[in-house]
Amino acid sequence: MSDKTTIGVGMIGYAFMGRVHSQAWRSVGAFFDLPLAPRMAAICGRSKERTEAAAAQLGWAAAETDWRALIERDDVQIVDICTPGDSHAEIAVAALAAGKHVLCEKPLANTVAEAEAMVRAAAAAPSSVKSMVAFNYRRVPAIALARRYVEEGRLGEIRHVRAQYLQDWIVDPEFPLVWRLQKDKAGAGALGDIGSHIVDAAEYVTGQQVVGVSGLTETFVKRRPLAGESAGLGASRAESTGEVTVDDAALFIGRLSGGALASFEATRFATGRKNAMRLEINGGLGSLAFDFESMNELWVSEGGGGFERILVTEPDHPYAGAWWPPGHGLGYEHTFTHEIKDFLEAVATGADPSPSFADGLRVQRVLEAVERSAADGGRYTNVED
Amino acid sequence: MSDKTTIGVGMIGYAFMGRVHSQAWRSVGAFFDLPLAPRMAAICGRSKERTEAAAAQLGWAAAETDWRALIERDDVQIVDICTPGDSHAEIAVAALAAGKHVLCEKPLANTVAEAEAMVRAAAAAPSSVKSMVAFNYRRVPAIALARRYVEEGRLGEIRHVRAQYLQDWIVDPEFPLVWRLQKDKAGAGALGDIGSHIVDAAEYVTGQQVVGVSGLTETFVKRRPLAGESAGLGASRAESTGEVTVDDAALFIGRLSGGALASFEATRFATGRKNAMRLEINGGLGSLAFDFESMNELWVSEGGGGFERILVTEPDHPYAGAWWPPGHGLGYEHTFTHEIKDFLEAVATGADPSPSFADGLRVQRVLEAVERSAADGGRYTNVED
Amino acid sequence: MSDKTTIGVGMIGYAFMGRVHSQAWRSVGAFFDLPLAPRMAAICGRSKERTEAAAAQLGWAAAETDWRALIERDDVQIVDICTPGDSHAEIAVAALAAGKHVLCEKPLANTVAEAEAMVRAAAAAPSSVKSMVAFNYRRVPAIALARRYVEEGRLGEIRHVRAQYLQDWIVDPEFPLVWRLQKDKAGAGALGDIGSHIVDAAEYVTGQQVVGVSGLTETFVKRRPLAGESAGLGASRAESTGEVTVDDAALFIGRLSGGALASFEATRFATGRKNAMRLEINGGLGSLAFDFESMNELWVSEGGGGFERILVTEPDHPYAGAWWPPGHGLGYEHTFTHEIKDFLEAVATGADPSPSFADGLRVQRVLEAVERSAADGGRYTNVED
Amino acid sequence: MSDKTTIGVGMIGYAFMGRVHSQAWRSVGAFFDLPLAPRMAAICGRSKERTEAAAAQLGWAAAETDWRALIERDDVQIVDICTPGDSHAEIAVAALAAGKHVLCEKPLANTVAEAEAMVRAAAAAPSSVKSMVAFNYRRVPAIALARRYVEEGRLGEIRHVRAQYLQDWIVDPEFPLVWRLQKDKAGAGALGDIGSHIVDAAEYVTGQQVVGVSGLTETFVKRRPLAGESAGLGASRAESTGEVTVDDAALFIGRLSGGALASFEATRFATGRKNAMRLEINGGLGSLAFDFESMNELWVSEGGGGFERILVTEPDHPYAGAWWPPGHGLGYEHTFTHEIKDFLEAVATGADPSPSFADGLRVQRVLEAVERSAADGGRYTNVED
Repeated sequence: MSDKTTIGVGMIGYAFMGRVHSQAWRSVGAFFDLPLAPRMAAICGRSKERTEAAAAQLGWAAAETDWRALIERDDVQIVDICTPGDSHAEIAVAALAAGKHVLCEKPLANTVAEAEAMVRAAAAAPSSVKSMVAFNYRRVPAIALARRYVEEGRLGEIRHVRAQYLQDWIVDPEFPLVWRLQKDKAGAGALGDIGSHIVDAAEYVTGQQVVGVSGLTETFVKRRPLAGESAGLGASRAESTGEVTVDDAALFIGRLSGGALASFEATRFATGRKNAMRLEINGGLGSLAFDFESMNELWVSEGGGGFERILVTEPDHPYAGAWWPPGHGLGYEHTFTHEIKDFLEAVATGADPSPSFADGLRVQRVLEAVERSAADGGRYTNVED
Repeated sequence: MSDKTTIGVGMIGYAFMGRVHSQAWRSVGAFFDLPLAPRMAAICGRSKERTEAAAAQLGWAAAETDWRALIERDDVQIVDICTPGDSHAEIAVAALAAGKHVLCEKPLANTVAEAEAMVRAAAAAPSSVKSMVAFNYRRVPAIALARRYVEEGRLGEIRHVRAQYLQDWIVDPEFPLVWRLQKDKAGAGALGDIGSHIVDAAEYVTGQQVVGVSGLTETFVKRRPLAGESAGLGASRAESTGEVTVDDAALFIGRLSGGALASFEATRFATGRKNAMRLEINGGLGSLAFDFESMNELWVSEGGGGFERILVTEPDHPYAGAWWPPGHGLGYEHTFTHEIKDFLEAVATGADPSPSFADGLRVQRVLEAVERSAADGGRYTNVED
Repeated sequence: MSDKTTIGVGMIGYAFMGRVHSQAWRSVGAFFDLPLAPRMAAICGRSKERTEAAAAQLGWAAAETDWRALIERDDVQIVDICTPGDSHAEIAVAALAAGKHVLCEKPLANTVAEAEAMVRAAAAAPSSVKSMVAFNYRRVPAIALARRYVEEGRLGEIRHVRAQYLQDWIVDPEFPLVWRLQKDKAGAGALGDIGSHIVDAAEYVTGQQVVGVSGLTETFVKRRPLAGESAGLGASRAESTGEVTVDDAALFIGRLSGGALASFEATRFATGRKNAMRLEINGGLGSLAFDFESMNELWVSEGGGGFERILVTEPDHPYAGAWWPPGHGLGYEHTFTHEIKDFLEAVATGADPSPSFADGLRVQRVLEAVERSAADGGRYTNVED
Repeated sequence: MSDKTTIGVGMIGYAFMGRVHSQAWRSVGAFFDLPLAPRMAAICGRSKERTEAAAAQLGWAAAETDWRALIERDDVQIVDICTPGDSHAEIAVAALAAGKHVLCEKPLANTVAEAEAMVRAAAAAPSSVKSMVAFNYRRVPAIALARRYVEEGRLGEIRHVRAQYLQDWIVDPEFPLVWRLQKDKAGAGALGDIGSHIVDAAEYVTGQQVVGVSGLTETFVKRRPLAGESAGLGASRAESTGEVTVDDAALFIGRLSGGALASFEATRFATGRKNAMRLEINGGLGSLAFDFESMNELWVSEGGGGFERILVTEPDHPYAGAWWPPGHGLGYEHTFTHEIKDFLEAVATGADPSPSFADGLRVQRVLEAVERSAADGGRYTNVED
């Protein structure tokens, strides 16, 4: 890649998302013929020691402990935000103001107001400065193939969307009160964390928008043990638990702009389902079904027949040709590699990457409509434009 | 069976339901050790010729063209109602008044008022006169086994019910306006026909009741060609279609009496799904999943592990011991054989058969709440008691 | 059916096969428009009391205790043989000599010599006297559909057949020495009982014949507890077991007449597999896969794509149109109903039913070649003509 | 990783295997806490230009065009052989003689004689010099978990192994005569390329050895178009094809050292199967089933029940804890990352890596026995020690 223009990347956060983004930045150039060669310039975290260890392990050239310093680095042209949602807006707005491209983890922000500020900042930036929200499931080859089928009209008029994101990691009432269960840090619970993914995926694959919803949310376990050191010495049992301030599960039904009916369910209480991000779409001519637990498969029904299990590993399938021979599957991390490949191409060519911050805001507004509906007795609630 | 007391059966209707009930009456004694031997005394239909042909083909000893005459026959002690929903109430009330046991196809009636009249008639009858509504899916061995798992507490507290009934037989807009698409005859569309099954199954398996719902319904194809001769000679194209007066699809979310969230979807527009009556239940300790398209399988997750595919064909599984060795599956019709076996046992022992007319009324009230919610912008609507 | 010519049936044996054949005779007329109406004239067993009870329960008009008397009855035109293999030849030869049509359970006989005698008797009978061996799996709708695909050339040249019949009912070494584990009664073990089914199915679906094999057989558990009363009072432990004289499992590979390679495995030691009769066929243009544990499904790959799950319940699928709407599956017993329907049509029209006794003999010769190969160190052994 | 001892790696070959090994070397340190930090020192290929491009793309510090020069480099302590089988022996023997650790792609060599030479070289090397053959499927988490189940005795005595490796990439007779279809380069066809994987996997998971086999091989398409430039200008049609000198498919049955029966099938003619490397094992207490096309799943039956689908992504599953949360699957390349992790640990700790060259030789001897059996009319042939 020595003859390619390099572009410096600075990443903020080194936990789950930071690790998977690092693997993507590290790998993308070996598989895709990129217009720009990414250079893993610097990583940023609050603890100097831990950030330096992460830099060494994950392959970043430098470590920063202040995200503002990271943004200001001359060798950083792309800022990759992998922090919890409460800091997305502040970092993204600052990075865009500094003329840096921004790739931001989902959900775009914890509130609609923050997301709007981010969209304004993206609009205010020069058109050569790109921003993108990291709904990585769009880059599952099977989901990108599903999109292609709909675009080509092979499904006909869409009648139904059935989207579920089922996990089970907090079924145990003794599971502690981690930050993802606290509204001030996470913004929302299952609705924001995984419900956002299925709203984006449904809109992406159908090319339609959710226009109104009726919603129900629930927090099955109201209080949980405090996590780690915060419980403290001598804490009484009563003092050692805290309130869960986000939803455990959210269900909503609604209508899409093209006339389809849609059903959504996001939950962390589906015992036995580990990461069942499922999408089924029925059209007048055909249907599609997907489950991320078998991420290399897309099930397609056409001509009134049964469902065909397509292994999405053929050379002409989205992204798949860059990897291995047919039948040799990909994993979770590859969705991020694909995302970064598309982002780098947009940066290089001047195209607008997708999903944009505006797309991220739209998802946020759907989630907000669900919350308003749930608070208003399930009344059908229009998604605001 | 010569030494057993026989009991005479009279059946009204000889279409789809009449054929499958006949097979059940004809077969039940060969597989189950019954307290009463059913005798297929008479069948009733409007056309003398067709009814007589049906009697010959299906194995009924006599044919009647007036259901009142059938009820009055001395050799008929059980009246089996296999007609469309608009005639259920009148026939059932008359049969009960005549002291006959009644097995009535679902949905119990086309309206809550009719269903209430049937419940009153059942209550007014002597306690020895039995009545039952034919929600046959309760008698799928896998669903009965699911019920057993919940009763035994193996799933823990129920958190989620996910129920779908997906068909695709009217996806084609040229499919004609058959009686099931006309409100005066069918009462409702997908909601009443197949939505009723999943409401009953969800309540049966969980042992809980749906207490409130938010609903959406849709008729995707508003007008359809008139069926058969009714189109008439010289009809212009405009005259040759009629209005579809029932729903094509119904979605609703709600709460169960035990605190679970539930999601329901009934549709005739799920291209590629032929008879996908699906039920998934998540509890604090385990989960269950079922799809009627693979009716001999129940999927069970316990102890946080994956889902085990249980072939529900073992001798100790519900109903299965009466049939074939393990792995030799049953079909659709067997659910009716099981239903009739249970009904005959109730008649013989004096126990109350289940689901009762009151259970059928409850399902009707849930459906009515869905319709009221859908008409009221999806507002969460309590199911009336 | 009053206006149809009836034909009398006499059945010998009332155990597993007798029960399922009875259900087929009882049901066939209600679903298929038959040229002859079968009349269940008489059933035959050794115990008078048990046979009379079986007649009453299964719907036979009379009971006999001597199969020769059954054959001689004027009201019996069809003899249905449901006994163990050691009596097939004697009964079938006598019945054919008496001018009766014969339907005989599989395997045709316990030895090639017996099977040859049966083929000779069938050939010696007038052409209006029909005989058929009951390889019921040919009448699974999915397998009949598979045959249709091959016949239509949709698979191209056949390259591979992969056939397995996996059960687990004798995995427990304490399972007793029932008749199926004794060579004098059963002829062979897994090889004859279930291996015969997959040989017939492979030949039927491909339209080719097994021309040579290399085989391995094994008896994992050499001695087993004597079953029931035969163990006797005061028997010492050593005396209370008997030798297993048949194979527990048989594996063989071979070539088909059209050039395909084939792999067969029949075993009663596949823990967790209940009745996994599986067939996969790969051709130059497409492939098929089937597993009886999901008997309503056929998996088809065409055009280099993935496998489509076809629910074999459509009106134009073999046999399926006579039953229920799409997606409402059939069970094990229906394969026998279909078999009897085809047999009755052959008897009425004069066509030769299939599989013939000659077909049954061919299967026997394949099994014999497997045994010879296994006894001769696996040497590739030609199947004799 | 700056404080870790680094170890230099030199890799020979940059095609399919070179690309996937590179990804593994590049990634392993970011996910596993290694005792040695690998440094991607040099890559070797015949074309200077292509090798330099590969070095740049795949992340190697230098490029060599002579494998002997690569071996001699001071910054290379590990030689990773990713060439076709005909050069394995020469390179490996030289590398071991030079005191370099060797990781060699499978099959170990094209002939038993070559493999024996490699085993001798490995034995002659100092014990601190390690060698390993790259049967990567052992490092599929699901297969490693299967091994654990067998080791723990959860399956009981093993009765059956059913191993298949099904591909379809040369079904088309117009597919050209690539090197994998030429005996002088590839050694064998499906038997060596993919048959070797299933023999190794079967022996690894069961802990038993194949002791004898009966085999059949076939070349369905005898001549194929010459690939690329070799066809030449003016070549007549007859001249433009070449002979296929390896098998298209190989079937063999045999016995394992512990008494189990085993069935193997390797083919490139299984239309619709892309990379179906399947393994099913039945024991007295339980069974396992695996298919690489769904590589994150292991199916387990215990206690006589059905098969449980285990997503092998839990923290306590082999290798899985280093990656993502439960339900977030891995892909093909991860098996190589795991292999390299284990190899580096063996190098660092002095343990003997597995599978050893001796293991690779054993697999070779099984394949040779299959070929001898196939050439000798399928006679059961003992595997030589």
